[in-house]
Amino acid sequence: MNAEIVAVGSEMLTPQRVDTNSLYLTAELNNLGVEVVTKYVIGDHLVLLASAVRLALSRSEIVILSGGLGPTEDDLTRDAVAEALERKLIYHPEIAEALEQRFARLNRKMAEVNKRQAFIIDGAAILPNERGTAPGQWIEESGAVVVLLPGPPHELKAMFERQCLPRLSRIVPSEVIRTVELRVAGMGESDLDQLIAPVYKKYQNPATTILAAAGDIQIHLRARCGTESEAQALLAEVAGPIELLLGERIYSRTGETIEAVVGDLLRASSATVSVAESCTGGMLGERLTSTPGSSDYFVGGFITYSDEMKIEMLGVPPEVLAEHGAVSKETAEAMANGARRRTRSTYALSITGVAGPDGGTEAKPVGTAYIGLATPSGTEILKRQFLGDRARIRSFAAQFALDFLRRRLSTRG
Amino acid sequence: MNAEIVAVGSEMLTPQRVDTNSLYLTAELNNLGVEVVTKYVIGDHLVLLASAVRLALSRSEIVILSGGLGPTEDDLTRDAVAEALERKLIYHPEIAEALEQRFARLNRKMAEVNKRQAFIIDGAAILPNERGTAPGQWIEESGAVVVLLPGPPHELKAMFERQCLPRLSRIVPSEVIRTVELRVAGMGESDLDQLIAPVYKKYQNPATTILAAAGDIQIHLRARCGTESEAQALLAEVAGPIELLLGERIYSRTGETIEAVVGDLLRASSATVSVAESCTGGMLGERLTSTPGSSDYFVGGFITYSDEMKIEMLGVPPEVLAEHGAVSKETAEAMANGARRRTRSTYALSITGVAGPDGGTEAKPVGTAYIGLATPSGTEILKRQFLGDRARIRSFAAQFALDFLRRRLSTRG
Repeated sequence: MNAEIVAVGSEMLTPQRVDTNSLYLTAELNNLGVEVVTKYVIGDHLVLLASAVRLALSRSEIVILSGGLGPTEDDLTRDAVAEALERKLIYHPEIAEALEQRFARLNRKMAEVNKRQAFIIDGAAILPNERGTAPGQWIEESGAVVVLLPGPPHELKAMFERQCLPRLSRIVPSEVIRTVELRVAGMGESDLDQLIAPVYKKYQNPATTILAAAGDIQIHLRARCGTESEAQALLAEVAGPIELLLGERIYSRTGETIEAVVGDLLRASSATVSVAESCTGGMLGERLTSTPGSSDYFVGGFITYSDEMKIEMLGVPPEVLAEHGAVSKETAEAMANGARRRTRSTYALSITGVAGPDGGTEAKPVGTAYIGLATPSGTEILKRQFLGDRARIRSFAAQFALDFLRRRLSTRG
Repeated sequence: MNAEIVAVGSEMLTPQRVDTNSLYLTAELNNLGVEVVTKYVIGDHLVLLASAVRLALSRSEIVILSGGLGPTEDDLTRDAVAEALERKLIYHPEIAEALEQRFARLNRKMAEVNKRQAFIIDGAAILPNERGTAPGQWIEESGAVVVLLPGPPHELKAMFERQCLPRLSRIVPSEVIRTVELRVAGMGESDLDQLIAPVYKKYQNPATTILAAAGDIQIHLRARCGTESEAQALLAEVAGPIELLLGERIYSRTGETIEAVVGDLLRASSATVSVAESCTGGMLGERLTSTPGSSDYFVGGFITYSDEMKIEMLGVPPEVLAEHGAVSKETAEAMANGARRRTRSTYALSITGVAGPDGGTEAKPVGTAYIGLATPSGTEILKRQFLGDRARIRSFAAQFALDFLRRRLSTRG
């Protein structure tokens, strides 16, 4: 079965924006065994939208549109699909009422313009939006399906996962697609590929995809088979040798984030953690607390941007700063020790570095970072040199700090 | 004049790849005053490609294809365009010879398959490729232009810049495109639209696009005119009344982030800021320090996740926590005051709330947040009720805190 994806919105035709919803949708459709054969990005323009929908429907069984369901005049997806399918738009007072109640719960009055969102194409199933105001629509038309989804990624994902996937799995011919996702920290993409390519290159099925972010690599293996047991056997045959080669660099086999893995390890050993951040400015704390229930193990943290605050908040000795500088092994050590002592946490992570673009020196160029880990049995420091812009250097540093703690907790277990 | 861009290649229909050539092409076309109205990504499939080219040509004057000009069987762009235009492909021995010489210079023998690259659509101008093997093609067809460019970005850019731009500037009527971007905090998308739609709806030119994220809205106005001064006058005519209506809710007219705007305001008044974060866990500090040079005004912060840490790090009185709870006006106030006192910063922001998914009560449901701002002349507290998942509630809270400080700093000015 084939699908086509239409991203709607003039802002996505500017030189600054790319459509990323289609990447998520493609991954999910591929999982069902559906191939995406064309993607479109179309501005807020009724005629262009309608003609693309007609073209897509003339040759593919699944057409998915994202965006253009908002309340404003330039939100034309509803009208364009109605025109392409030659169906009417019907006003649903119950949707308008639900929207009004949603606004009332926030002590706000609904703007009149929101009623545009209560128009549904004749014959469409309404897909309630748990995370926003625009409902989605599911329309079946002579053997094909047209789906209208909201543009904001968190709304689109929730709606697609909970309401479209079950419907799609009923109409897509059954084939079993099973995946394994290995997540790896602490090595570069090309080093990893050189190591594991001799294993996965022998196989067309499962298909292997490698995705890399700052200090974080995902390996996706995707098997398409007639039965569940065939798919699982094939995945094990390929994943087994890869896991052996990568060893403890693999932090997850189930798609969990590294912060969730660290959280589970801390919880399992009834341990707690605190942070002391300089160049990352709170990013490490933000990541550790992004997981629900993180108050079980995260105690608190210190963002010490100035030397003065490193001295006062963390008790870093002024002579350490004077002698070695704020970006040094000694300062990282004193920061981690200070955070651990002052919060009485089991572990404390510290980061001090040069995130740039300014502030680099010959001895400590932009990208230099020291990461400290204070534990009940002593304090260890890692030095790393990261490449990239300010945002990437900060992400790398936070990722390495999390992986530092993970490895320590894993060897304890 | 309008253009459509077709990116060719099945690899760009995977969940891991985006087409970036179109961003470069869009920027260059916009500079000439040409609007990109649709972009396509199409796999290596003759019929789909030919029908997209036909659709694009039926409505736009410029159609640019990138990729699919290689030597292998799945490189079908030449064939697809020939079919769409109903023209023949003609073998050019001089191209094959030049290719052979290129290979000889590298001491390699040309594979027979490379001769596919010597086929040119009847009537096309050949665009030599200085950086690769595949020549491009320029075809004029009853008032429209179809351009075939190679996929590798460095080949495409060199060819477009040196060979297509001069040709395009001869056929594109001279027009100027100028944009204004207003950024707005502290109101919902539909409320904003209701307020300003009566202004911008009167105009087709400039075109208006509204984009919304958590607590953050961008308004793009885009004018197409014959001259620079006409474009600027038209933008002023529409932006002026919109700016009057939105007033101080506009935080930027130049596309800056709110954290950069806050940073500039702090720097201008030689003031500093610190943070005290509970549910955001470091996100506010992370955002304030994402801007280079933030050490000029950001002193430090406290991530106080537990009651104990609120007491010890910030000096929140235990009886305040016992009586009002950690998520309360009183605790937010004591947190902001504590951060300001302990860092001696001019201002301090605090956030305490229920980010969820657990921890909500009837009195303080998930999404409740108190945001405190301590200043030299006293401390103010805002209560807000945010909707969404954990990540969105945290983003909203950080955004509102930044806007709280911005407004305070703007009224000082």
